[in-house]
Amino acid sequence: MQLFDYFRSSASFRVRIGLNLKGLAPERHFVHLTKGGGQQFDAAFTKMNPQQLVPVLVDGAEAISQSLAILEYLDETHPEPSFLPGSPIDRARIRALSLAIACDLHPLNNLRVLFYLKDPMGQSEDARNTWYRHWVAKGLSAFETALKEDRRTGKFCHGDTPTLADICLVPQIFNAKRLECPLDPYPTVMRVFDACMKVPAFDAAQPMKQPDAE
Amino acid sequence: MQLFDYFRSSASFRVRIGLNLKGLAPERHFVHLTKGGGQQFDAAFTKMNPQQLVPVLVDGAEAISQSLAILEYLDETHPEPSFLPGSPIDRARIRALSLAIACDLHPLNNLRVLFYLKDPMGQSEDARNTWYRHWVAKGLSAFETALKEDRRTGKFCHGDTPTLADICLVPQIFNAKRLECPLDPYPTVMRVFDACMKVPAFDAAQPMKQPDAE
Repeated sequence: MQLFDYFRSSASFRVRIGLNLKGLAPERHFVHLTKGGGQQFDAAFTKMNPQQLVPVLVDGAEAISQSLAILEYLDETHPEPSFLPGSPIDRARIRALSLAIACDLHPLNNLRVLFYLKDPMGQSEDARNTWYRHWVAKGLSAFETALKEDRRTGKFCHGDTPTLADICLVPQIFNAKRLECPLDPYPTVMRVFDACMKVPAFDAAQPMKQPDAE
Repeated sequence: MQLFDYFRSSASFRVRIGLNLKGLAPERHFVHLTKGGGQQFDAAFTKMNPQQLVPVLVDGAEAISQSLAILEYLDETHPEPSFLPGSPIDRARIRALSLAIACDLHPLNNLRVLFYLKDPMGQSEDARNTWYRHWVAKGLSAFETALKEDRRTGKFCHGDTPTLADICLVPQIFNAKRLECPLDPYPTVMRVFDACMKVPAFDAAQPMKQPDAE
């Protein structure tokens, strides 16, 4: 297996956590998202992923894009420990929590979106930071309620083992901290985050512990 | 089963297609997203989905949010016809195509985002439409390449039966048409779209054929 990723990319961070949990160590290739205009726009990378986004996992002859598709693939091909344990309804809750971050929070605060707000939209750095914090607050406050008011929340987002939901949550909290978003309003979220960070698979996947970190 | 949806919501449209393909007809509840400030903000609906977004599927005592979590749940509980046929690598491609739309295209053009660009960001209607068309063009042009350059593309996005990828694609094309985005640059995408619209499950799910259509 080969992983194409970037230390700061939170979608890459998700896949690194997943690989660590499964005990897999693919060959690493680093794609710098800002250097020289962005290495994700190089012809060779674009051929592998026309979306020009990291991460990409290559397994044999196949390149897989989209972090959640990669994580579901890893879970199907390496079932233990499961990212989606339990009944179909348990799995639905875990996926819904994951997608609340992966669809409704993270894409709005992605690098290419922040660039567009600057140029051509002409939004100041202050306005862009306010945008960023707005979607973090909206996303995390709904996430806090979803965790707090559901008896299935355990030590982690769903039960007492890490699932896909925790894999999506942790990189989002790293981003929120980096942009100095207030996190006190989300005590359940932060309790789960702290539990995750005690798991070596999560800790070793964090941006500043990657070989390409700056 | 009960479905909470809104005719114009493209995430709801996905779930309606999925239910039709499985031959399921849940009781319908309509949540008007703009009337009276938005019925998704009502206390009863917020209790069911703290994210205050449609669709929500209720099965027995459980409420499931997030369209892709609902569709995976339907596929696990009603396996035929499969939304995710084939090997793990086939399923990974289908999910990656689905997520390219559900994560990287649709959330940027969602109603609440367009509202924020207007107020507080003060972007004109022209600038908001340009934003909309920019992300549609970026998303569909990568999607076109992904379909055109892969031998696994068939009558539909993946093979000759509708999958999760087609379920995500079709509502996005409806949106693109509504905002008058140019679609000529995407002949493979539009060939698949036309094939989907000949399938009664897709046709019957379209916004203007819903009881709450305006």
